[in-house]
Amino acid sequence: MNNLVSIKQLQPEQMIALVKRAAEMKKDGIPRLDEQYYISNLFFEPSTRTKTSFEMAERRLGLEVVPFDAGFSSALKGETLYDTVKTLEAIGLDALVIRHEEDGYYEKIIGKTNVTIINGGDGSGQHPSQSLLDLFTIYEQFGSFEGLNVLIAGDVSHSRVARSNADALTRLGANVHFLCPPEWKGEFEAIHDWDEMIETCDVVMLLRVQHERHDEEMAYTKEEYHERFGLTVERERQLKEDAIIMHPAPVNRGVEIASELIESPKSRIFTQVENGVYVRAAIIEMLLHGRNGR
Amino acid sequence: MNNLVSIKQLQPEQMIALVKRAAEMKKDGIPRLDEQYYISNLFFEPSTRTKTSFEMAERRLGLEVVPFDAGFSSALKGETLYDTVKTLEAIGLDALVIRHEEDGYYEKIIGKTNVTIINGGDGSGQHPSQSLLDLFTIYEQFGSFEGLNVLIAGDVSHSRVARSNADALTRLGANVHFLCPPEWKGEFEAIHDWDEMIETCDVVMLLRVQHERHDEEMAYTKEEYHERFGLTVERERQLKEDAIIMHPAPVNRGVEIASELIESPKSRIFTQVENGVYVRAAIIEMLLHGRNGR
Amino acid sequence: MNNLVSIKQLQPEQMIALVKRAAEMKKDGIPRLDEQYYISNLFFEPSTRTKTSFEMAERRLGLEVVPFDAGFSSALKGETLYDTVKTLEAIGLDALVIRHEEDGYYEKIIGKTNVTIINGGDGSGQHPSQSLLDLFTIYEQFGSFEGLNVLIAGDVSHSRVARSNADALTRLGANVHFLCPPEWKGEFEAIHDWDEMIETCDVVMLLRVQHERHDEEMAYTKEEYHERFGLTVERERQLKEDAIIMHPAPVNRGVEIASELIESPKSRIFTQVENGVYVRAAIIEMLLHGRNGR
Repeated sequence: MNNLVSIKQLQPEQMIALVKRAAEMKKDGIPRLDEQYYISNLFFEPSTRTKTSFEMAERRLGLEVVPFDAGFSSALKGETLYDTVKTLEAIGLDALVIRHEEDGYYEKIIGKTNVTIINGGDGSGQHPSQSLLDLFTIYEQFGSFEGLNVLIAGDVSHSRVARSNADALTRLGANVHFLCPPEWKGEFEAIHDWDEMIETCDVVMLLRVQHERHDEEMAYTKEEYHERFGLTVERERQLKEDAIIMHPAPVNRGVEIASELIESPKSRIFTQVENGVYVRAAIIEMLLHGRNGR
Repeated sequence: MNNLVSIKQLQPEQMIALVKRAAEMKKDGIPRLDEQYYISNLFFEPSTRTKTSFEMAERRLGLEVVPFDAGFSSALKGETLYDTVKTLEAIGLDALVIRHEEDGYYEKIIGKTNVTIINGGDGSGQHPSQSLLDLFTIYEQFGSFEGLNVLIAGDVSHSRVARSNADALTRLGANVHFLCPPEWKGEFEAIHDWDEMIETCDVVMLLRVQHERHDEEMAYTKEEYHERFGLTVERERQLKEDAIIMHPAPVNRGVEIASELIESPKSRIFTQVENGVYVRAAIIEMLLHGRNGR
Repeated sequence: MNNLVSIKQLQPEQMIALVKRAAEMKKDGIPRLDEQYYISNLFFEPSTRTKTSFEMAERRLGLEVVPFDAGFSSALKGETLYDTVKTLEAIGLDALVIRHEEDGYYEKIIGKTNVTIINGGDGSGQHPSQSLLDLFTIYEQFGSFEGLNVLIAGDVSHSRVARSNADALTRLGANVHFLCPPEWKGEFEAIHDWDEMIETCDVVMLLRVQHERHDEEMAYTKEEYHERFGLTVERERQLKEDAIIMHPAPVNRGVEIASELIESPKSRIFTQVENGVYVRAAIIEMLLHGRNGR
């Protein structure tokens, strides 16, 4: 495998293998790669955790990270992403992590370049390293996915996470359900009332209300949203004892989740961030080892 | 000590120890730390010299510097600084240098994270590494602080430097005086006429006129300000023979200081910049050694 | 030699020596320098390929690259470039690569600082590393410059490349001609019709139409420009068998060159990018070796 652009590329056993490799790295440390590789992170949308997480994974693996400032690049002069990628290939980059607002931007690139492409998120599409860190975090808690009840709650139709995770979890044997305001369900079937699932779900996966993507007026105030569709302190008390709470962050405190729950015992929100570094190291290791063997 | 957020944390003997360690590093070079640490510089306000100075000190110490672009981070999505810091902790950062426009931003963080925090300047508050490099520069010239007459001149009420330095120098035994336009003195007692001090002061510490912080029309043209409150060529001639001129920079040439004085024999303006790298290396070494012993 | 600000500094034998050194590096790899040097890239204008190319060359040479964000620096507070450079010298930088919109910005710096300055492009002036990578690319094809017919086509009057390359190529024995719309020729003599040269030129060097520098309405639509002054598929067929096509990029596809020609057999557009890394490594090696011997 030379690229990872979508979780759909991975068979269940490949997902499990990556999760197990990440778990090994978390236990024993991230080993440096044998050869010197050059990587660059092309983030055309703002990001703290995904970008910094990749930067950390890359450094621990011993890669040289060549900076790329999307906000100050030739993209401003109208250069296409394809031409930017071909340019970076000519400069000698081995791999690129790309986040771009266009759905499926990678379709124009894959197969036309020898640079390894890792999708760091495209539009409302795929975000495979986020999916894998979520899988890792669930696996750490339950040791398997078979029969788990996962409730994905929030801005379902705009979320990269909902799409990627629902697909992966279903293929791994989990039962995935959605909860959202009726007008946000998009292509998904969804429930609109926490009471239907709160006592039976094993994983509550909250999504960010993406204010920046809602052009229209939001139909709810923050307080109304929290009351009807957020994880309130009251709802959290109804969860099963070993249930866990996840969120891809950044969190809108007091909107999709009560502020005091973020660092509560059931929350895995900062564990997800921690796990992200190991999952990304495992992904890069797998892809660049593959590169060696070409 | 795990954090350095204010010069007020440091006893006089601790300030002197850091100054002496910086002097050693200036003489013998900056040694690499024994372990691999990861640091990030979070600058939410523009900076050249403080940020680059930290970057240089960190690299000479052998740290891995993980880039953080505040202008393109999740802060844009409304993430709180606390959540950003907890995220970077989860990602594995050992230390963060933070510059932020909010006075005392660090109060919300210290004690709630294991990451070492170094304050790179907060609002109109503290800027301890700047204070220490100023102390180092004075110590290099005079070998002690006892009884020195220090005149801090300029935009006193808006200046981080005035506040931090006045406190530290006074505790070290120096006599600190302020000179500024009457309307800019803030909480300080100040003189408004150079003639009162020009022949007796040992250190003239000029402050930048912070045009970007003066929302109101400035009451003086640049020429008027220079004539009344700036260090002119004429005034410089009245200084004692071993007096020195300091400025935290960037300088408004011809406003707070005559352009031709910037690289004149009494000026320590670029020496301060040079000394900043050593002082920051000494601070980081001290804090991360402390971290080792935890 | 301590600085490289213009191709005019270099005698023909010095240009050839740098080209040959770059060719060696392309064949055998870029060796690390013996000492640890610190460099920073100051790009006050957007750039992908020049900046990333320098970043890659610097890393392969083993330099420490200290980041500098021109869009978030003290330049925003009105600091002069001279003061920024003197500050970075005091911080301990050995070398600076600078791109700046002001013609001849380096005149104010050279001779007043010990930092090695490499001009990464100034206004409509010089861009010596681009000229040298173009020379390298031509040399790779033809093995010499004597008597080659080079046609530089496009936005001649606004182009750094036209100016630098015309000078260098002429001194190396090539015959340089210009082709452009009549109103864009600036100080140059130019032809306005491809038919005059298409069958006899050895090198077609296309320039970017710099939309961002044309304040006035452009007199041509993109299609009209392409038809009259661009390299169309039809014109490409008239070229000599061993003729090559060059472009400094980023390319406006379908304007100065037909999109399908960019990766065609005669095109050296991505070869130029690749060669840029080796030329820049050769330049830095030469200048910092010189620094050693000071």
